[in-house]
Amino acid sequence: MTTAHTSKQTAAEGISSGDIVLSVDAMGGDKGPAPIVAGLSHFLRKRPGARVLLHGDESQLRPLVQKRRLSGQVEIRHAPDVVAMSDKPSHVMRHGKASSMWSAIEAVRDGEAQVCVSCGNTGALMAVSMIRLRKVEGVNRPAIACLWPSRNASGFNIMLDAGADIRADQDDLLMYALMGASYARNAMGLSRPRVGLLNVGVEEHKGRAELKVAQDLIARAASRGEYEYIGFVEGGDLPSDRVDVIVTDGFTGNVALKTGEGTANLISERLREAFRKTPLSRIAALLAATSLRRLSKRIDPRRVNGGVFLGLNGTVIKSHGSADETGVRAAVEMAYQLAESGFSKRLAARVASAAALAQDDPDEEATEDAAGSPASAGSPGAKDKKKS
Amino acid sequence: MTTAHTSKQTAAEGISSGDIVLSVDAMGGDKGPAPIVAGLSHFLRKRPGARVLLHGDESQLRPLVQKRRLSGQVEIRHAPDVVAMSDKPSHVMRHGKASSMWSAIEAVRDGEAQVCVSCGNTGALMAVSMIRLRKVEGVNRPAIACLWPSRNASGFNIMLDAGADIRADQDDLLMYALMGASYARNAMGLSRPRVGLLNVGVEEHKGRAELKVAQDLIARAASRGEYEYIGFVEGGDLPSDRVDVIVTDGFTGNVALKTGEGTANLISERLREAFRKTPLSRIAALLAATSLRRLSKRIDPRRVNGGVFLGLNGTVIKSHGSADETGVRAAVEMAYQLAESGFSKRLAARVASAAALAQDDPDEEATEDAAGSPASAGSPGAKDKKKS
Repeated sequence: MTTAHTSKQTAAEGISSGDIVLSVDAMGGDKGPAPIVAGLSHFLRKRPGARVLLHGDESQLRPLVQKRRLSGQVEIRHAPDVVAMSDKPSHVMRHGKASSMWSAIEAVRDGEAQVCVSCGNTGALMAVSMIRLRKVEGVNRPAIACLWPSRNASGFNIMLDAGADIRADQDDLLMYALMGASYARNAMGLSRPRVGLLNVGVEEHKGRAELKVAQDLIARAASRGEYEYIGFVEGGDLPSDRVDVIVTDGFTGNVALKTGEGTANLISERLREAFRKTPLSRIAALLAATSLRRLSKRIDPRRVNGGVFLGLNGTVIKSHGSADETGVRAAVEMAYQLAESGFSKRLAARVASAAALAQDDPDEEATEDAAGSPASAGSPGAKDKKKS
Repeated sequence: MTTAHTSKQTAAEGISSGDIVLSVDAMGGDKGPAPIVAGLSHFLRKRPGARVLLHGDESQLRPLVQKRRLSGQVEIRHAPDVVAMSDKPSHVMRHGKASSMWSAIEAVRDGEAQVCVSCGNTGALMAVSMIRLRKVEGVNRPAIACLWPSRNASGFNIMLDAGADIRADQDDLLMYALMGASYARNAMGLSRPRVGLLNVGVEEHKGRAELKVAQDLIARAASRGEYEYIGFVEGGDLPSDRVDVIVTDGFTGNVALKTGEGTANLISERLREAFRKTPLSRIAALLAATSLRRLSKRIDPRRVNGGVFLGLNGTVIKSHGSADETGVRAAVEMAYQLAESGFSKRLAARVASAAALAQDDPDEEATEDAAGSPASAGSPGAKDKKKS
């Protein structure tokens, strides 16, 4: 990996030790670096204290950054290679060291930046993140958490895993509950998030055998994890206001996520058709323009752009490959908030303390007040009151 | 099970052997029998040749049927018991013989009606259907097929399994492809439906190991099943126009179905809010009323009410428990169309011929032109040109 000399100098000028620094892979998206720099520009205007390390081909990035006058906040890190959407993760792990993706992750590993953002190939991003950042002690499978538009006051629920790995056993699902609750506390300010386990029905007897075991584990860990376990939830609960964190395996989560997006897109398409249909409906569209813009903002999937990788030593945000500047801006804003809250260290502490408790103190676990019962799982008993 | 005397007499007058007869469980829904009789009434006015056996508590049904002057087309079959939504399937199998659900299925078993429709408890309906109608030779797990609003000319795709069983191995998935294609031919008039297998990505190397095996089996059976296998599809393809039949296991299908419904409901809710927001938007709503009604009709989940149980000796349609008269009407209309096409026998013939071919002629299968390649799977070679 070559680092251009000029950019090092910019770094020395622009970034000081107390800043929030984001590491952004400029090259991974379907539309090239232009929408990424445009999204960054909007973000940086609102966050004058933020700094960005921008990784990619310097000859392409330099003019984009200069045109938008971002040189004071953005430092370019030259990386000649680009990870393609079709590249297999194993190939990138072997041959991707000169890529912008690798370089972006490396900056988090080296402590230069707090959070990494990339629009690139999800599989490769997770693979490189795993080998470079390493899993947090106690985590077997990292997960991707995504935000789901919901009827909750915050407007969102958190679902994980959205497809980091297609398998998950009961211990993985427990870890997802702990990590998802920590994410909800730090990204959404919920002191005691409500956690549900995705199943085909809410009744106790329904679903796969491993889900019943996972349900017991998650209920028992509720006081220690400072969340409330509300039991099984269904697909229809993903946008509901009775839950904050929805736990599922990566296969199911990925299908649900893409199904939700596909359904929203179909409806938006038909809504536009309906308003173009007749002269009257075209006038109506004009009159309702403000309300419709507000609606389309509320259901715009770009506003929730950004899956967060949980369970690594460092935070990585995967933005949609096809993200435009609005999407990139949303992802970078989320990265900023997580960096500001010191999320990565809080999550690691939470997971480590839970893992330690489970290993060192099996008796305490067995006699814990919350044991085995979702109803009593929210009872007091947590010792660690840090926001993690 | 008690059959009231008066209804027997109505039967003798009203139903002759060439009629299309539907067997309808009047008692299973959340809202009692009133919306069911109301839905039937709309349906029967459009289908004067149809006859209905209506199962439930005669003292409740008689006034509803008389009020709507349906006695000429509807025969009441008295059944004193009702299966509750909370009843476990095993309980209903042992103690449900006097229920309206049991009675409704029994009429299909006895050849009195061609199709059964019920709004009742899905698990109990499938369990009773399995023991009374029995599985078609060659089918290990029956499936529930549902219609999914899509960009296709028909307006719908078919997805199965929507939750008959939470497991499905590669042979089950192959059977779902064969049954789903047969359903698409008979319910939607597609001579060569396009079949896709639901996965977390369209690339060959993605997904669970059993899906790769299932993919090979489904591709190889394409010419014999008279469908085109298009490969893996994603959640976002459920509403797409590149596929007609989407095959998945019951767990994933159930989550996808409820996620899609939940997303559509959230958006509709917010759309209504947007139009109530300001005086201008309320005027706009009036101007666009026709277009919006057309839209809400197109995305109304009640219009696709009705999961069809596939793989049994007899057709059973599960309507939503909360279906109103519009939903019931849609389910009964679908039942009528399937009865008219002789769907049940066609599907059994298709499955039997496929199972027989697979057992008797392993060599032919191995050397078949379509073997193993989705690209060549649509090639000619089918011998059975019946619409099954």
